[in-house]
Amino acid sequence: MSRLDSVIRRLEAQRACLDHVTAAVATVGGPVLEIGLGNGRTFDHLRARLPGREIFVFDRQVDAHPDCVPDATHLFLGDVFDRLPDAIARLGRTAALIHSDIGTGDPARNARVAAALAPLYAQLLAPGAIVASDQEIPSPDWLELPLPDGVPPGRYFLYRAR
Amino acid sequence: MSRLDSVIRRLEAQRACLDHVTAAVATVGGPVLEIGLGNGRTFDHLRARLPGREIFVFDRQVDAHPDCVPDATHLFLGDVFDRLPDAIARLGRTAALIHSDIGTGDPARNARVAAALAPLYAQLLAPGAIVASDQEIPSPDWLELPLPDGVPPGRYFLYRAR
Repeated sequence: MSRLDSVIRRLEAQRACLDHVTAAVATVGGPVLEIGLGNGRTFDHLRARLPGREIFVFDRQVDAHPDCVPDATHLFLGDVFDRLPDAIARLGRTAALIHSDIGTGDPARNARVAAALAPLYAQLLAPGAIVASDQEIPSPDWLELPLPDGVPPGRYFLYRAR
Repeated sequence: MSRLDSVIRRLEAQRACLDHVTAAVATVGGPVLEIGLGNGRTFDHLRARLPGREIFVFDRQVDAHPDCVPDATHLFLGDVFDRLPDAIARLGRTAALIHSDIGTGDPARNARVAAALAPLYAQLLAPGAIVASDQEIPSPDWLELPLPDGVPPGRYFLYRAR
């Protein structure tokens, strides 16, 4: 498989997972949290699949396409560990979906970050809410969900809050 | 269509075109020229689809994944307008395929660059060779080919040398 094949498979898997979880939370009230805006593609996909839903976005800085930048009210700029406590104070346990897409090429760092994020995410999730993540995020606060058809194990991780 | 949908469609169309042209030149001898290495994904795809074929790569600098960097003999570094004459001197009209992927977000600039590239490419193409380009490259030296099924008009441009 070439790197072109590989990126297509990765993006198709990401889309399959986002389509799966946005369908699953369509009837669950509450905002969506996009952790890691990046180029804004997945933010754009989430708002297309959940029209009218409030989406709060977290990133260190805005590098997205101008069409994919949320308004200031929905943007938590800065280190995610500094800004998640602000979101917890503001939103509480109301989120229907957290999409966490902040992995790097460093697996050890990714595991440390995921372990530190889990208890913060847990303070934002409504009962029955979903976490979709590019990294494994083990936590006693949620149960792992099966991936949609065609997505190989380990490519994405889906969880439902207890 | 979200930006995530859009990038998947763009990459799938690119792959469909590369698969189409590499199949078409499988029986045409001569090297492949990759104009614009970028992240190296399409270089990796071309060498996967044409194993053993010489591939010469042109780019201003190397920003590709380390696995996708050709050896020094097959790398023409610098401005493409400075390096194509070197390739013409070295290779002559021997290329079976030129993949030209150097478009920017500036359509007027893209058209100017394409017009200037056409006579240089013409001096590298073997009879019956193919040009696959992300930009339209009009030239009396080649005929436009139909795109493979599923690729919308204007997304890629395929030509066969007269």
